[in-house]
Amino acid sequence: MTIKEGDYVLMLAPDDKTFLIQVSEEKKLSTHLGMLIISDVIGKNYGDKISSHLGKEFYLLEATTWDKMMKIHRQTQIIYPKDASIILLKTGLTAGMTVVECGTGSGSQTIALASTVKPGGKVFTYEKRDEFREIAMKNVKSAGLSEFVEFKSGDARDGFAERDVDVAVIDLPSPWDGVPAAAKSLKGGGRIASLSPTFNQVEENYKHLGDNGFIYLETVEVLVRNLLVREGKTRPTQRMISHTGFLTFGRKINKDS
Amino acid sequence: MTIKEGDYVLMLAPDDKTFLIQVSEEKKLSTHLGMLIISDVIGKNYGDKISSHLGKEFYLLEATTWDKMMKIHRQTQIIYPKDASIILLKTGLTAGMTVVECGTGSGSQTIALASTVKPGGKVFTYEKRDEFREIAMKNVKSAGLSEFVEFKSGDARDGFAERDVDVAVIDLPSPWDGVPAAAKSLKGGGRIASLSPTFNQVEENYKHLGDNGFIYLETVEVLVRNLLVREGKTRPTQRMISHTGFLTFGRKINKDS
Amino acid sequence: MTIKEGDYVLMLAPDDKTFLIQVSEEKKLSTHLGMLIISDVIGKNYGDKISSHLGKEFYLLEATTWDKMMKIHRQTQIIYPKDASIILLKTGLTAGMTVVECGTGSGSQTIALASTVKPGGKVFTYEKRDEFREIAMKNVKSAGLSEFVEFKSGDARDGFAERDVDVAVIDLPSPWDGVPAAAKSLKGGGRIASLSPTFNQVEENYKHLGDNGFIYLETVEVLVRNLLVREGKTRPTQRMISHTGFLTFGRKINKDS
Amino acid sequence: MTIKEGDYVLMLAPDDKTFLIQVSEEKKLSTHLGMLIISDVIGKNYGDKISSHLGKEFYLLEATTWDKMMKIHRQTQIIYPKDASIILLKTGLTAGMTVVECGTGSGSQTIALASTVKPGGKVFTYEKRDEFREIAMKNVKSAGLSEFVEFKSGDARDGFAERDVDVAVIDLPSPWDGVPAAAKSLKGGGRIASLSPTFNQVEENYKHLGDNGFIYLETVEVLVRNLLVREGKTRPTQRMISHTGFLTFGRKINKDS
Repeated sequence: MTIKEGDYVLMLAPDDKTFLIQVSEEKKLSTHLGMLIISDVIGKNYGDKISSHLGKEFYLLEATTWDKMMKIHRQTQIIYPKDASIILLKTGLTAGMTVVECGTGSGSQTIALASTVKPGGKVFTYEKRDEFREIAMKNVKSAGLSEFVEFKSGDARDGFAERDVDVAVIDLPSPWDGVPAAAKSLKGGGRIASLSPTFNQVEENYKHLGDNGFIYLETVEVLVRNLLVREGKTRPTQRMISHTGFLTFGRKINKDS
Repeated sequence: MTIKEGDYVLMLAPDDKTFLIQVSEEKKLSTHLGMLIISDVIGKNYGDKISSHLGKEFYLLEATTWDKMMKIHRQTQIIYPKDASIILLKTGLTAGMTVVECGTGSGSQTIALASTVKPGGKVFTYEKRDEFREIAMKNVKSAGLSEFVEFKSGDARDGFAERDVDVAVIDLPSPWDGVPAAAKSLKGGGRIASLSPTFNQVEENYKHLGDNGFIYLETVEVLVRNLLVREGKTRPTQRMISHTGFLTFGRKINKDS
Repeated sequence: MTIKEGDYVLMLAPDDKTFLIQVSEEKKLSTHLGMLIISDVIGKNYGDKISSHLGKEFYLLEATTWDKMMKIHRQTQIIYPKDASIILLKTGLTAGMTVVECGTGSGSQTIALASTVKPGGKVFTYEKRDEFREIAMKNVKSAGLSEFVEFKSGDARDGFAERDVDVAVIDLPSPWDGVPAAAKSLKGGGRIASLSPTFNQVEENYKHLGDNGFIYLETVEVLVRNLLVREGKTRPTQRMISHTGFLTFGRKINKDS
Repeated sequence: MTIKEGDYVLMLAPDDKTFLIQVSEEKKLSTHLGMLIISDVIGKNYGDKISSHLGKEFYLLEATTWDKMMKIHRQTQIIYPKDASIILLKTGLTAGMTVVECGTGSGSQTIALASTVKPGGKVFTYEKRDEFREIAMKNVKSAGLSEFVEFKSGDARDGFAERDVDVAVIDLPSPWDGVPAAAKSLKGGGRIASLSPTFNQVEENYKHLGDNGFIYLETVEVLVRNLLVREGKTRPTQRMISHTGFLTFGRKINKDS
């Protein structure tokens, strides 16, 4: 696949450091291993390499959803790809579906959702703090996903405008603030997912989920541990992220069905 | 959404046990909480409930990708949804892409891949043991995903017919048997993922990945731990799955680029 | 070391199953790999073997503290050796010290404490349920540690008789019931450890610890994961114990010092 | 307990930072929360407090074995208390026993072993690098345990002088270098423990353990996860130590018994 102006390319340095850049004819990228002329990548293919002015070779890679999430500009604690992965498969989100997200934060989860519902689907993402929404919009644009996302302002307690959505993802300090709105927005059998760092939030949220017609509640924690693979001396890495949050899932039932 | 004949419905019992059934006019489902008449669900909506002959209420839910994977008929060790989730996001697989999988096994990973590439994409899945391919075909059919999967026989060492694929997923006892074939099938910058239970397989596989033009190698292990949430007495569950396998990822480069 | 009548011996079967027996001249031990004549072990040394009537060889081993804890008769959820290990080192319990334990339960933690304070030290262990105390007494006797343990009845809320103890270990459903008594029993700088399965217990206990002059509070969870080692196919075991309890530690200060 | 000159005291700052000091009449301790006059602690009791020149209160605590291990001067990767804890209980080491350790390193494990075998027992610890032995000797002295430790030079491959020891602990890059020597030193039924970071070391070590008369082999990994307890917002800490090493255990049998 030939790379052209406007494309987003993941540049891989010899030491596995990566840089996510948008191709334009003028830009230079200054790295710890020398200067790169970005316009050099035009006409190259993914999988090809270019050299820095110090002669170090950088490979040109397509950014995966995981890469895009890890490369965003962060103003807030982001939702990690490990957690987003589990949310996507457990809620059964696929192309063409509609999903409501609240709050947007820096947009890392928004990128995962939009990558999954495209084409034909849509992410409606609510954020009441304007400055975060601005950043999230830039991040989603850098991921090439703007057409699948509608950014909305407003507070979850005022409700979501959408109806019959497939999935609702709540990432609020008080997740229960979004539960009644999610219940109204979701179709029968629709899935809710929420992420909370503390067990107290989870416990409190269960009451609201139950009161708002959610059943089949389940909470999990996801740990990803890296293995350091070297011939004859392979071992788990010495440090890891121990906790980001608990993920709670439920399904919307129709009252008086 | 109104349920009609032929649909696949997840029936949720009052004790959170689930049954994945295909709706037909005649079938009955015998459960630990009484008999259900399957034709009763026709015309109901997802999120509605029906009663067993013992008066127990079962909710009608859409099966998510996770549900479908856990409900398949197993002849082999399956790939768990927790691992498939991470594979999907790390490889950046999305709608419209093509992916080669080898081997198919019982088809749980195939279901995850097909759910993700639809519409417009395709999973080419290789399995040399005919009896497993038969089961996988049934499982993929039950998940409603047959049109997005092409089942193929043959040994990975003979190569894959497909070219310029986006992603290759290898689940073989000797994953390196599939590495040269994956290298030929993948486009530049394409992603490989392989799953292996032992340290030794991972270590050996790294040599073959390096020899076949794969870079940016990374290996992770995914642990999902359930939280038992009850008001005033919330705690992690007492037992968990400690290990299914190590997931190894890499990217295909163009030699002599 | 020659084995004599009255000794406790751990018999190791060829498949790594173990039996903890007390040597007497008459007993027979019926196992899945044949009958063993217990008197055969008299005059043997640890590390020697005997044969069952089916010709299977059993090795004679000294029982470690860990073995003794795992072999007790259980009427209650026991404290696992993994947790006891951490309690011992974090509280700095060593030979000659005095420790108050509440409640005794089946006595597994009592065995760990007694093994550590001997010789010269003492474990005072409180249990209000007579039937558990009976079992714990037998278990401690089987571990050969009776002389280092004083079993006491009574409720923690009525206080402990001992003063200036080095360490207090609380294993109660409401650990705070034992906190004021522990505070009175401990010397300045003495350590408290308590084990609780739920987050809620830990959180509530912190208030009582703070109110009763405990500082430097810390809570940990201990996970032990087994590795299945076989040449060329080594991997973590597939299932593990995910959670037994949270361990909370603190130090007693002197008020108005 | 009154603190006197020469005692080792753990000073706890208001922010839970700790300082392990030996009491002498002249020393001052400079901390981030002001200067402390060490001679002020003489005549105080454990659990009392003193003030820095900035008016910050520091509590005087007895150092536990865990504290002592974490406070040593490190020239090498130390054995962590979490791992030492499990080694002590699984090998059944108690007061009065003899144990051979190889290599000494910075002496953290030596401190754990010496705390456990005192009184009446002895740790014989081998280290071939003189500069490490010097540091370990100072660390063991600071822990007040010198009389229970005999420091020895020499290479494990030349054997250990001791016979009929209860426990051998091997911490070498090639643990099998110490296995034949441990086999000769241990009594029948004696326990070996070794710590290795990589799975390759474990796998290779199993062959040597088997060849040298060790049975009942078991390998575990210990993870300790901290809980951050704050009222209404309790959660696991965000980062943790993922891996220090694998612990392998075995028992010595008598050949031709």
